[in-house]
Amino acid sequence: MIEMADFFIETKESSAQLPQNAKPKMFMFGVPSYTNMGDQAVSLVSRIFFEKEFPNYQYIEIMDYDNEAGIKAVKEIITKQDIVGYVGGGNMGNLYTDIEEDRRAVFSTFVDNLTISFPQSIHFEKTAYGEREKRLSQDAYNKNHNLVLLARDAQSYRRMQKTFKNKIVFIPDMVLYLKPKVFNAERSGALFVLRHDGEKILDESFIESLKVILKKHYSLERTDTVLETPTQITPKTRQKLFEEQLQKIASQELIISDRFHAMVFSVLTQTPCLLFGNSYGKGKHAYFDWLENISWIKYSDERDITRIKTELADLTSAQTHEYDLQPNFRPLKRIIKKYIEMQA
Amino acid sequence: MIEMADFFIETKESSAQLPQNAKPKMFMFGVPSYTNMGDQAVSLVSRIFFEKEFPNYQYIEIMDYDNEAGIKAVKEIITKQDIVGYVGGGNMGNLYTDIEEDRRAVFSTFVDNLTISFPQSIHFEKTAYGEREKRLSQDAYNKNHNLVLLARDAQSYRRMQKTFKNKIVFIPDMVLYLKPKVFNAERSGALFVLRHDGEKILDESFIESLKVILKKHYSLERTDTVLETPTQITPKTRQKLFEEQLQKIASQELIISDRFHAMVFSVLTQTPCLLFGNSYGKGKHAYFDWLENISWIKYSDERDITRIKTELADLTSAQTHEYDLQPNFRPLKRIIKKYIEMQA
Repeated sequence: MIEMADFFIETKESSAQLPQNAKPKMFMFGVPSYTNMGDQAVSLVSRIFFEKEFPNYQYIEIMDYDNEAGIKAVKEIITKQDIVGYVGGGNMGNLYTDIEEDRRAVFSTFVDNLTISFPQSIHFEKTAYGEREKRLSQDAYNKNHNLVLLARDAQSYRRMQKTFKNKIVFIPDMVLYLKPKVFNAERSGALFVLRHDGEKILDESFIESLKVILKKHYSLERTDTVLETPTQITPKTRQKLFEEQLQKIASQELIISDRFHAMVFSVLTQTPCLLFGNSYGKGKHAYFDWLENISWIKYSDERDITRIKTELADLTSAQTHEYDLQPNFRPLKRIIKKYIEMQA
Repeated sequence: MIEMADFFIETKESSAQLPQNAKPKMFMFGVPSYTNMGDQAVSLVSRIFFEKEFPNYQYIEIMDYDNEAGIKAVKEIITKQDIVGYVGGGNMGNLYTDIEEDRRAVFSTFVDNLTISFPQSIHFEKTAYGEREKRLSQDAYNKNHNLVLLARDAQSYRRMQKTFKNKIVFIPDMVLYLKPKVFNAERSGALFVLRHDGEKILDESFIESLKVILKKHYSLERTDTVLETPTQITPKTRQKLFEEQLQKIASQELIISDRFHAMVFSVLTQTPCLLFGNSYGKGKHAYFDWLENISWIKYSDERDITRIKTELADLTSAQTHEYDLQPNFRPLKRIIKKYIEMQA
């Protein structure tokens, strides 16, 4: 699929590995080492996007655990033509504070370069803690007048505009830059892909009643898009794991999930998928914004088993069709192109 | 509320009325003469927005029936600092071809000035006719490299990006620039505000069953946001009619509607409102994008009367709260400011 460029920082000795040449550079911060395959896919496809659209740029990835050293190393070599990015995902806000702290550090440091917060969902809780964290982010983000925040759903777009003074642009999740394709996998069984984190709202009793109706027709399995092994992923290992993940989804007759990226992987593999919500609607909104017209994908807030049966029947009998969200990445390309032109 | 500026074109002798002075001008085309109060509110609030945010501009409205004469007259006096607009609404596409034709004429004429298509929903049908009309619009819009299309819901944002090469920006319906306020009206009864047009999808039999449950608690009335009298509205008469419309909504205990702007008027008057869909989801999407967190408003695709009863109970017992979408108009202000700065 893609050739990995030679340089990315994956050790504490990161600065030593930074290339010294005249090529313009894209520094992507926050690249996940943790085993959430949704976030891994996001960082992989961000690179695919950037290297395809801006091939003369050297794409350099800075691992999440290397944020501090990475900032220091990049400061040494960055020039005006370079671009700074922070990976997308569903972790802007106070639910994953370690990531939010890294993001603040990056945004408030590289204030003279185009800085792009790749497509995110945002959620600051309405608690004293959430409000305090929000103010910290506001202070950090507002220092950077070259910062553009990309929102991957309309709810996040509205919330980011309310929260930050920066320019906000509405762009799909980066993984949706890939187009659905036919996988040569034989399909069998139904796969539950379910969260085990603080965003989970699906009752286990409800999941049990879904199993009761599904086991009449399918062999059942349960998993999560967060892997248990390996315990760490790097840009060198993520592509193979991503392709395995797609193969796994592509070999199912049906996906039942509360994971946004399980839905996205179902989109890419043309696998029927019924998505339920998380604690703040990030999958729901992205579904209605970008995926509502895909015949084999459906979002549901339903809890009535009889009604769900009907939804599943519709999904599993749907004809597949082409789907292409690439035109919706045009505003992102335009922002980057404009910056490049201004520097030339 | 607002003072109407002295100049707008409302007769065939329009060109004679165009002001000859050095003030920069905003020419707003497509100002509705027809009696859809949603569209009237849109054109009124667009003016309120523009005159508040850019007070040194002279705001000139060109009536829908005056499009051709208006284009001719504006061509005579337009200078580089001037801005061209076409009013927002839910009529971009092939459902209201007379309006779409006027829009094409405006966009393909004033190609050297910032041209803003105010927030719209878009719907081209997947028919030979729809495709043909779409190509005509593509040809016309693509002639104007200074044209910015504002989409008022995420579905329209996605569709416009797929359809047009122009810059697309995601902005709420203009009427949502106004904030909800407390009206001093005594509330009584439930009001059905229902379409009588090609976008209608609510069955009369379903409406009847709603009436059966509602008439136990409320006196019922049925109306539409399209007035029967007067037969024509101008910028001089629309504000009073808009205020009457708000008063009417504010004096209800409950609104049941399939009209997007009946929901918006309910937002502004803090009136409980249950919204059902139209043929292509324009109200539904705008609800989820901008209004989902308003306690007294709900969108529903439900047809089960027992479930609707629960939804209505939640709505009518909801506490009101503040709501402000003004931060979401910032990208529109930024586009205009940037253009003004470039001309200075």
